[in-house]
Amino acid sequence: MTNDVSALLFDVFGTCVDWRSSIVREGELLNRDRRLEIDWAALADAWRAMYQPSMEQVRSGERPWTILDVLHRESLEKLSERFGLGALDKAELDHLNRAWHRLDPWPDTVEGLRRLKKKFVIAPLSNGNVALLVNMAKRAGLPWDVILGAEVAGHYKPRPEAYLAAARLLGLEPRQCMMVAAHNGDLVAARECGLRTAFVCRPREHGPCQVTDLEAESDWDVVVSSFVELADEL
Amino acid sequence: MTNDVSALLFDVFGTCVDWRSSIVREGELLNRDRRLEIDWAALADAWRAMYQPSMEQVRSGERPWTILDVLHRESLEKLSERFGLGALDKAELDHLNRAWHRLDPWPDTVEGLRRLKKKFVIAPLSNGNVALLVNMAKRAGLPWDVILGAEVAGHYKPRPEAYLAAARLLGLEPRQCMMVAAHNGDLVAARECGLRTAFVCRPREHGPCQVTDLEAESDWDVVVSSFVELADEL
Repeated sequence: MTNDVSALLFDVFGTCVDWRSSIVREGELLNRDRRLEIDWAALADAWRAMYQPSMEQVRSGERPWTILDVLHRESLEKLSERFGLGALDKAELDHLNRAWHRLDPWPDTVEGLRRLKKKFVIAPLSNGNVALLVNMAKRAGLPWDVILGAEVAGHYKPRPEAYLAAARLLGLEPRQCMMVAAHNGDLVAARECGLRTAFVCRPREHGPCQVTDLEAESDWDVVVSSFVELADEL
Repeated sequence: MTNDVSALLFDVFGTCVDWRSSIVREGELLNRDRRLEIDWAALADAWRAMYQPSMEQVRSGERPWTILDVLHRESLEKLSERFGLGALDKAELDHLNRAWHRLDPWPDTVEGLRRLKKKFVIAPLSNGNVALLVNMAKRAGLPWDVILGAEVAGHYKPRPEAYLAAARLLGLEPRQCMMVAAHNGDLVAARECGLRTAFVCRPREHGPCQVTDLEAESDWDVVVSSFVELADEL
């Protein structure tokens, strides 16, 4: 069934990188350096909770195409009072916003990608903008062949255009592409576009009390618990 | 002057890869296997001579956006009678058209890019389509951080949109990007958009009798004769 797959397209936030721990890591350093007492786990969760609603404004046509860096920055602004970010100046908030460019990979990510790259074209298919994904890859050593995703498609996942643009840019049919994600909803949308699907279980993406995406909720083509296992399977 | 450059954007055909020798190499094998007597050097030159006119139809708005694979294929069709390609069936012509995905790098290209990648974001800024550039990079070992160029910009060089889109996607100002090319005209257009410029002399791109781009025709920021020399300079 997956024999004619030649490209693997990866969701990034949560699937390749541990955004929550990374934001907390940066925040704790900021607490120490600036003698703040910000609850970074709560801030990370609140920030991420604004992710889908902010993109929905673009998907719905309520606002024109806007990259994720800008949406993240607006969300941070809205969280400022609640989390006591008033002590930070504009340059510090800009730097904090770019914490999303400095997320750490899960322990299996780089090894898995390196192995998969020998056989497949590997690319992020993320809602993150190109600069975010390039900077993240340089820092974390993610060996992408090409950066795909929402910005080059001009549409945010799970809009079908996001998946179809990736296949088209690679000169492939959707069935020759496999979406790899830790989120069942992402795979639902990818399958509807004709892509193959691989679920990678990331039960700690949302911290120790995660309740969503703890298991495959459909008969995805591949179900694994790490990128190394994905490389073994494929 | 080049201190604040953080990304290097590379022209590909002629600058990174030796398209003429590569087409001849593939063609000679085809001559042998199919007992043909096609003059591949002449065909390569004629094929390449149709490159700018075919893109000009898109630049001028005479036809909608069309990727280079399609333009190459149409040009090949037009050369069929003159060069005796009638013996080749559709699949063979399709394969031959994709010889542009299998071009060999100049001897210094991979080593130079590997070194430059440690300090800069490196990306092609080519009129080749994304699939062409991805397939070429996989085969030749070109270690791009991201694939940029005409297809993601929706405009062919030397239209300013092609250069400006690359900077914008990287989240950079034009002056933070340096265009690296073996063609003075490409650098003229890049400089007009505010990019830094590096000329790499490739005096054999068009074979032994090349008469154009034998030297820098302006005061480009950097002038070198190989990517290794470029890495030394930067």
